[in-house]
Amino acid sequence: MSERLARVRDVIAIQGVDGIVVTHPANRRYLTGYTAHEALPDTVVGACFIDPAVARLLTGRTNLDWAKTEAEPHGFTVEGWDRPWSRAIANEIKARGWSRAGFEDGAITVALHREVVAELDGAAELVPIGPAISYLRRVKDASEHALFERIARIGDEAFTAATQGLTVGTTERELARRIDTELEARGSQGPSFPTIVAAGPNAARPHHDPTDRQIETGEPVVIDMGAMLDGYHGDLTRTIWVGDPSPRLREIYAAVEAAQSAAFAAIRTGVAWQVPDAAARAAVADAGLSEYLIHGLSHGVGLYVHELPTMTEGASDTFAGGEVTTVEPGLYVPGWGGVRIEDVGIVEADGFRLITHAPKASFA
Amino acid sequence: MSERLARVRDVIAIQGVDGIVVTHPANRRYLTGYTAHEALPDTVVGACFIDPAVARLLTGRTNLDWAKTEAEPHGFTVEGWDRPWSRAIANEIKARGWSRAGFEDGAITVALHREVVAELDGAAELVPIGPAISYLRRVKDASEHALFERIARIGDEAFTAATQGLTVGTTERELARRIDTELEARGSQGPSFPTIVAAGPNAARPHHDPTDRQIETGEPVVIDMGAMLDGYHGDLTRTIWVGDPSPRLREIYAAVEAAQSAAFAAIRTGVAWQVPDAAARAAVADAGLSEYLIHGLSHGVGLYVHELPTMTEGASDTFAGGEVTTVEPGLYVPGWGGVRIEDVGIVEADGFRLITHAPKASFA
Repeated sequence: MSERLARVRDVIAIQGVDGIVVTHPANRRYLTGYTAHEALPDTVVGACFIDPAVARLLTGRTNLDWAKTEAEPHGFTVEGWDRPWSRAIANEIKARGWSRAGFEDGAITVALHREVVAELDGAAELVPIGPAISYLRRVKDASEHALFERIARIGDEAFTAATQGLTVGTTERELARRIDTELEARGSQGPSFPTIVAAGPNAARPHHDPTDRQIETGEPVVIDMGAMLDGYHGDLTRTIWVGDPSPRLREIYAAVEAAQSAAFAAIRTGVAWQVPDAAARAAVADAGLSEYLIHGLSHGVGLYVHELPTMTEGASDTFAGGEVTTVEPGLYVPGWGGVRIEDVGIVEADGFRLITHAPKASFA
Repeated sequence: MSERLARVRDVIAIQGVDGIVVTHPANRRYLTGYTAHEALPDTVVGACFIDPAVARLLTGRTNLDWAKTEAEPHGFTVEGWDRPWSRAIANEIKARGWSRAGFEDGAITVALHREVVAELDGAAELVPIGPAISYLRRVKDASEHALFERIARIGDEAFTAATQGLTVGTTERELARRIDTELEARGSQGPSFPTIVAAGPNAARPHHDPTDRQIETGEPVVIDMGAMLDGYHGDLTRTIWVGDPSPRLREIYAAVEAAQSAAFAAIRTGVAWQVPDAAARAAVADAGLSEYLIHGLSHGVGLYVHELPTMTEGASDTFAGGEVTTVEPGLYVPGWGGVRIEDVGIVEADGFRLITHAPKASFA
């Protein structure tokens, strides 16, 4: 954690500010270890104030004891604040003596910003620093990698246990429940996100709440699930079927499989984020199925289930090495169904090291 | 839902704007029925554009089918949008021909706002409307009241089932698990929030993640839990014990009970939100325990677990009738523990109609 604070202090120097107010929930947790989180955009459960000398966390008095327990071991002093939060933020900026206060303009509402400016009354300038702190989170360290391996193992095993002996007539909801039970039995601290089971035509929706639809022979069943440990999110998608896959399912599955393999082969340290995406798209185009491509290739995983890096068209950022990311091409045919295959791996100098190992069909 | 749109159109007239962009997740769901929600402040899964003539929902193409299914029955036309969202928002404002576009300044980030202004390039003015749309949600209609009664019944029954025959040595975590199982068995669609079980000194924390601490004789065990149906949240807190309560527990429990009764008696249509809070505070002061009062009296419940109204010092808004709110005084003694009692009820012309009925001890 002290390494993380050091990197925030690098950002302070680069941005030419006296200190930074951190209000993004994931960044706050990343730096302080404090696990409270906001339910709504118009609530704020705490803010960090970091400058070259001090690192402080202010939070509601209701959570003070909790915040101290979690954040003090990471070098933060923790204090309670009082409403209005805008005044508390302004007062802390003044108390720190900052004249240029960096703030996360992607993680503060227009209303709160306006109120802080009013409370500051010219005592300091608020300087937007964009996603500079979120950007720090994209590269994971060795302890995070080890945690992701544990998360992936739980997900792999839960998937295998829940789908073993799957029969026609099982409902999406029953299978989703089975997956959640298997995740929990292996120590997952809640599912990473609401488990998706989408069968037949429902599989044409990338996001789908499981229903009472019964699984039929030969149709696609898309399962998207993940374990969670210490706030870190797993993510695993498999497309399976009962009986023999229909010819169309075979064709589309093979194209998605080829897209995923092409992306895997393109990922390594130093490569631009857009390159694996282009490789996957090219593979889908080769199969003549580009019209069914409706979402991006990937997202980083971490304290949130969607974070940087994002492999997408035009993303010219390059991999630094150590990123943990999904690779999840999918094709969706309205009225028929869809196929998605998703694995998680670590970006390394010589390639993409997969950490999910749940079984999957292959037509390669 | 058409009644809700009509009320938004009243806001449009009052605010003197041509239309309103709704970005608050709860407001978007309230108006459209669309259940997608953001995980992070810097993501946006959709926005509504409402003016006197049309009601439109724009959302990511990944969720388009889902959004249409949910929002079209409520009078919305639904279309996919493309990144950057700022351009999509600006283009829609231009396409609607608005020159003054109301926006929720408490539910849009500084960065997104700046980008929309840039994309508009002077074609329209963005006018902050504050929490005007959130404010509409505070009064619940008959269908919402009926839903809350079902939610409360599930919570009451799950509490009773999970705590029946509770024995010394049970851990916080075991009891929380039991509660979640009982909620689910009665049809709750997930717990309303992570269930709190806080025993002994842990009960001094209003928010607490259940641990492996074993319950001891005579100490307070604070249980805070709720069922959820159709996105609406229940909320119920009881403080219980195994064996006889310690004298201190008895004293503190009686003060909290008196505070809750005083608040109940003060609530009715036309009363200012601060009045019941003042009544509860006075009861605690009479018991000489004011120093242990560290949080507000209540919050409205609805599509989010914390919403308007908020009974607190200085809240001069008055009850319109029909609000659904908690009343949850608590006292917290660091190192010893705490007591909180929370019920949910409906504000009516002749008083506060309780809808939670889980059993509770009384020393009155």
